[in-house]
Amino acid sequence: MQSSSGIITLTTDFGDSDPYVAMMKGVILSINPAARIVDITHKVPVGSVQGGGSIIKETYKYFPPGTVHIGVIDPGVGSKRRPIALLAGRHFFVGPDNGLFWPVIETQGHIDVIHLRKKRYWMDKISPTFHGRDIFAPVAAHLSQGVDPFLLGEKIDNPTGIAYPLPSKQNSSLIGEVVRVDHFGNMTTNITREHLRPFVKSKGFIIKIGSLILRKISITYSDVPEGQPLALIGSSGHLEIAVNKERLTTRLGQECGIGTKVIVMSS
Amino acid sequence: MQSSSGIITLTTDFGDSDPYVAMMKGVILSINPAARIVDITHKVPVGSVQGGGSIIKETYKYFPPGTVHIGVIDPGVGSKRRPIALLAGRHFFVGPDNGLFWPVIETQGHIDVIHLRKKRYWMDKISPTFHGRDIFAPVAAHLSQGVDPFLLGEKIDNPTGIAYPLPSKQNSSLIGEVVRVDHFGNMTTNITREHLRPFVKSKGFIIKIGSLILRKISITYSDVPEGQPLALIGSSGHLEIAVNKERLTTRLGQECGIGTKVIVMSS
Amino acid sequence: MQSSSGIITLTTDFGDSDPYVAMMKGVILSINPAARIVDITHKVPVGSVQGGGSIIKETYKYFPPGTVHIGVIDPGVGSKRRPIALLAGRHFFVGPDNGLFWPVIETQGHIDVIHLRKKRYWMDKISPTFHGRDIFAPVAAHLSQGVDPFLLGEKIDNPTGIAYPLPSKQNSSLIGEVVRVDHFGNMTTNITREHLRPFVKSKGFIIKIGSLILRKISITYSDVPEGQPLALIGSSGHLEIAVNKERLTTRLGQECGIGTKVIVMSS
Repeated sequence: MQSSSGIITLTTDFGDSDPYVAMMKGVILSINPAARIVDITHKVPVGSVQGGGSIIKETYKYFPPGTVHIGVIDPGVGSKRRPIALLAGRHFFVGPDNGLFWPVIETQGHIDVIHLRKKRYWMDKISPTFHGRDIFAPVAAHLSQGVDPFLLGEKIDNPTGIAYPLPSKQNSSLIGEVVRVDHFGNMTTNITREHLRPFVKSKGFIIKIGSLILRKISITYSDVPEGQPLALIGSSGHLEIAVNKERLTTRLGQECGIGTKVIVMSS
Repeated sequence: MQSSSGIITLTTDFGDSDPYVAMMKGVILSINPAARIVDITHKVPVGSVQGGGSIIKETYKYFPPGTVHIGVIDPGVGSKRRPIALLAGRHFFVGPDNGLFWPVIETQGHIDVIHLRKKRYWMDKISPTFHGRDIFAPVAAHLSQGVDPFLLGEKIDNPTGIAYPLPSKQNSSLIGEVVRVDHFGNMTTNITREHLRPFVKSKGFIIKIGSLILRKISITYSDVPEGQPLALIGSSGHLEIAVNKERLTTRLGQECGIGTKVIVMSS
Repeated sequence: MQSSSGIITLTTDFGDSDPYVAMMKGVILSINPAARIVDITHKVPVGSVQGGGSIIKETYKYFPPGTVHIGVIDPGVGSKRRPIALLAGRHFFVGPDNGLFWPVIETQGHIDVIHLRKKRYWMDKISPTFHGRDIFAPVAAHLSQGVDPFLLGEKIDNPTGIAYPLPSKQNSSLIGEVVRVDHFGNMTTNITREHLRPFVKSKGFIIKIGSLILRKISITYSDVPEGQPLALIGSSGHLEIAVNKERLTTRLGQECGIGTKVIVMSS
């Protein structure tokens, strides 16, 4: 059994103006006063299960094994979608069974998924609109104290999967897309270092996004003059398009953003 | 005497760009290195004592008894308004005597209010514009270490009250108003589950807000099709108006928000 | 040797939507599970070394001696700029050698600056675009565990300095500028209490900013009627211009902000 690190992370689309996140923290600390709580982000675009899922998948592995990761992007809260806990890659995950943890499930080998049903690990009263506070927070607190995840409900083998966009091949081109625009205006794509390898090894290649054409993979932003665009392998191992000391989003215009096609082809 | 949980919460209108909140945390940790600090929110609308007060009232009870709740919505900082500490409902509260804690005072039975006067529990130098850092943070840190609140100053029996809007009855109608618009665009009203009970028990009722008329209380958002408006009892026990997977604020238009009337009547 | 407080602060321009800050926290907690992490702010204007530097300088001293302050405003990440650690004023600082810590270096007497070179204190793989996660976070975690800073690399005596704007004298006038506009719309200048003293002692003086002329130094905001502008010594000891219960930024118009001249002269 994976022992707990005592750390609980939170990823939600709750924003930072309302007291919802703090209520969850109060619930956690009332159960496990020694829990250490870390916010991943509460600014996942509202209702974006894909956006939250990819952030959790990229981030959880930087925490110690035995960390409990709560994810609450839960537009179907209170409906029949199941509340679940996962044990995957030596980490725990708690949240709705709506595809939020699918990127973790897909990339990990052995995974146990538990349908949360044991109400003794929940709050006494369950609001139909706030399972984050009334189910997920208390369950995570119990996990962080070493409660066996298999006591929390029944094991299931059909967690809900959703499609996360993957790059496709068309003739000799690779067609990916932008999956995140960060605070700096840089665009991260779903194209990995491995996807790029055959192109980089060939005589020449171009990367096309919107009106931009790039012909090399830079190492870091300042490899090009200020104001110049570049392609590089970002800190998550994915192809990233950026402008040195400026915002790519400004450069490409408003029509570019999440979902914008990125094409890699031999030249 | 209520013993301390070692937890200190912070509710302010300081935003998250300036170092003010971090200065308070530094002061707290310099006095009590073991204090555990939780942000409730720093995005209370600037100067909104009512907004901050209702958030503190809704949230404090999710924390363990003995938690110290600092509130700094303090447009009169440095004037004659008194700095106070409260012992109410087994929790401690520290902040300005400007009505911020009135919702807590009104809903709790036995309350002790202390006018903070003992400077040995403050910072050495007091900025007239930042009592949050120089008075409230150090006082809260001392409380979190178990200092007797009655040592901090003199007991008073006339804390400042301010009017929080309450629903009124007019003939057989109930007239409430929107008191918070959350990150999802949902509107929470000052009408409680108890206020609604007689209407729900009657043959039929309508809820009117702006151009919308609703005829039932739903359980959760997904009880209605996407894009449809609904009324429900929100996670704080108040009547909430929302749109499934969309923003009610967009639907009702800019003229609706905090203060918008919500009318409940038998049909 | 300064012993560690076990506290690590973070000041970045990463914003709060991306998982970058949380990745740094995961790295820190993986090395030092007992570290206590406090956010100063992640809303430093993107790439503003001066903005971040002045926030770190104002804030670090409120934390206990032995605290480790990470600063990541690092537009030159991955270039030849050196990663450094400082021991200054009984605090530790970790970040890029780009002037970010210059205000600390200038105001402290004895300072040791170490060029971080010992890769055994870094992550195994170093992304050229995220030294915050792969170098600064692990180095800070090791410092917070008591690792001797001189083991982290080689002492250097030429840290990079940058010009922070200082007020200048012209005839009998003092010409300063706005260095920060806070969440309340108040403007903090680079003019200190000490700079003002000769003017305040003289028969009369005026303070000019944009279209405003002020003739006295108030103690706190509510010393003037609501909606009236005022000058005061802010909580950081600098001349601050504000409007009681309103935003000075609205009053002065968009052309005023960081960099706007503030003139003090005898009348």
